[in-house]
Amino acid sequence: MPRLVVKFGGTSLADIHRVRAAASRVRQEVERGHDVAVVVSAMAGETDRLVDAVRAEGALFDTREFDTVISSGEQVTAGLMALALQRQGVAARSWLGWQLPIRTDDSHGASRIVGIDTTALLERFRTGLHAVVAGFQGVSPGNRITTLGRGGSDTTAVALAAALCAERCDVYTDVDGVYTADPRVVPRARRLDRISYEEMLELASLGARVLMSRSVALAARENVRVRVLSSLVDGPGTILCGEDEIVEENVVSGVAVSRSEAKITLRRVADRPGVAAAVFGPLAESGVNVDMIVQNVGADGRTDLTFTLEEGDIAVAEQSLRGGAGAIGFEDLLVDTDVAKVSIVGLGMRSHAGVAQQMFAALAEVGVNIEVISTSEIKTSVLIRRMHLELAATALHSAFGLDGG
Amino acid sequence: MPRLVVKFGGTSLADIHRVRAAASRVRQEVERGHDVAVVVSAMAGETDRLVDAVRAEGALFDTREFDTVISSGEQVTAGLMALALQRQGVAARSWLGWQLPIRTDDSHGASRIVGIDTTALLERFRTGLHAVVAGFQGVSPGNRITTLGRGGSDTTAVALAAALCAERCDVYTDVDGVYTADPRVVPRARRLDRISYEEMLELASLGARVLMSRSVALAARENVRVRVLSSLVDGPGTILCGEDEIVEENVVSGVAVSRSEAKITLRRVADRPGVAAAVFGPLAESGVNVDMIVQNVGADGRTDLTFTLEEGDIAVAEQSLRGGAGAIGFEDLLVDTDVAKVSIVGLGMRSHAGVAQQMFAALAEVGVNIEVISTSEIKTSVLIRRMHLELAATALHSAFGLDGG
Repeated sequence: MPRLVVKFGGTSLADIHRVRAAASRVRQEVERGHDVAVVVSAMAGETDRLVDAVRAEGALFDTREFDTVISSGEQVTAGLMALALQRQGVAARSWLGWQLPIRTDDSHGASRIVGIDTTALLERFRTGLHAVVAGFQGVSPGNRITTLGRGGSDTTAVALAAALCAERCDVYTDVDGVYTADPRVVPRARRLDRISYEEMLELASLGARVLMSRSVALAARENVRVRVLSSLVDGPGTILCGEDEIVEENVVSGVAVSRSEAKITLRRVADRPGVAAAVFGPLAESGVNVDMIVQNVGADGRTDLTFTLEEGDIAVAEQSLRGGAGAIGFEDLLVDTDVAKVSIVGLGMRSHAGVAQQMFAALAEVGVNIEVISTSEIKTSVLIRRMHLELAATALHSAFGLDGG
Repeated sequence: MPRLVVKFGGTSLADIHRVRAAASRVRQEVERGHDVAVVVSAMAGETDRLVDAVRAEGALFDTREFDTVISSGEQVTAGLMALALQRQGVAARSWLGWQLPIRTDDSHGASRIVGIDTTALLERFRTGLHAVVAGFQGVSPGNRITTLGRGGSDTTAVALAAALCAERCDVYTDVDGVYTADPRVVPRARRLDRISYEEMLELASLGARVLMSRSVALAARENVRVRVLSSLVDGPGTILCGEDEIVEENVVSGVAVSRSEAKITLRRVADRPGVAAAVFGPLAESGVNVDMIVQNVGADGRTDLTFTLEEGDIAVAEQSLRGGAGAIGFEDLLVDTDVAKVSIVGLGMRSHAGVAQQMFAALAEVGVNIEVISTSEIKTSVLIRRMHLELAATALHSAFGLDGG
């Protein structure tokens, strides 16, 4: 029988009624003749509660024990989902990470899946027993529970779909698919029927919170068809697939926005070789992800260096830069958090010239000033004043013909 | 180094502050030169919350999934306790049932421990690493999580102490030891320094809620010295040990009371062989524990049959008896829940004649009527009106010289 992996996020399992509703969606897939493996997250809020309990014991903690504690949330939903399925007449058995096992490396808190042993699942499928698998967790070579980090249950689902050669991996979440833009920002945003892995990767890393980048990258690598759909309302959702399945390429498939940006400018940095390394080396070591970088034209051997980063990383970045001030040699450090990033993403940008130009023109028309620009093969991003975010996103959405009904 | 097992119940781990206080007690034992294995229950209320979540899915459930869900509470406290110990400078590692492993049979929800593999623990002890073991749980031959039933964490602690040949098993709870009576019923009750396994077994099964019978029986069988003490106040607690260690035997060591009793009388049952079997067979099959039994002298081939049971079992018992009414043939079934049981327990009863007589006299003196009597080697119990419970217990406590202060 064709195999299906079905994954439910925390909001889709927030209470016993939601668990039941989720189980009845699984039952429908079973009735359609699928062998189903359900991957579950913890109930909404549960993982945060457990993380808080660990943090209460101090900021520095043993990540092995952290994983033991926080993996319990998925253990609970796995058991409850199996019970809910049984109650609805679907023979089901729960599997924790160590039971299958889902083998990972021992980078606790952010482990990578090394392999999934599906022998037991496949045997049970043959006897008509469906599976519920705890997401987010695995087991290390030393037999300790590991967790996969943020969005880890999506990764479990995609990896399991790959290991089972599943027909599809359905990811139920609280939105009904991938949109051309965040509907809260751009009211005329539309749901996409299909999107390529590559576009989705750019959107995911740009802050469209539907799927974490890591699971999208895995789906792309393993060629797993992922469907994103809502557990609350019925609908076809959005299919993530390879480019070859996308018949008509949009020049631009979506507009992504990010509010949590910040800009740091180092004034009058020495304009000599090695300065960029002196600045960005320590930042990388401190775990600060630098996004866009601009260096002004220098004068009298000095220049201004501007870059953007996550707003939450400012304190660490400032400390790192001021600590190395002697080595770097700047006159002033300016922090600007009143900025936002707007990006357009589309496979067609590769073959269509002038897309970036069209973007800048559309922004100029509504009077939005561009402060920093960054481009990649299928994406162009600009940094603007934060108050212009909705104006800019809406203008771009229209300019590239994405507006729905 | 001498080994110690230290067990904390749910109220001793009710929040992060209690966990920390518990950890500091462990640290003291480590500083005294012990290799310590800490056994933890779930935080107070957590197991009930999880049980409710399972029951919300229906009264009949798969006990394998039930165990997966409810064992998560001990997983959380095991991790948190290891973190709290590390924070206090004690090297510690948590172990779940499947990790040691603690092997059990596959009677989910009420499993028995078959064996504990202490190899990993002993290896770690040699490197200075102490252990935190999740109580209440084990792993079945089929690699599923099992739980040990009510009071299971005490059983884990005693079994682990036996497997580790520990010097002692300290059970921290919310009372500071075993008392001659429940101080809420008998204000002049005193803490006992020592009590024999056998007396404790009688007291445990009589409703003194300090330790579950099962863990006491295991301690007796494996000859594990158990110390019961409070995690809230300092004190020597009560040592459970073999009779040989108890120098001066009390005739009576304690007075136990139980309010949750009920009495059922079957009127005018046929007074012929096989009737008792016809009555008590079906009750046993329905899981009803019958305690005291009295059969009146018969007249005209008919007799009255009276027995006591847990108040909570009445509905099941009535159904079972009325269902088999034809086979049993009684004229009336009377239920009386206005009763209570008072018992005296003491090793000395074996060698001292007339103890029961002394009991009846003491009760008669305060005007308490005895409805049913039951005796065993070191115990005598009587059923009385529930309103007489405190009066009877206080009178017996005085009569047998147990009053403190």
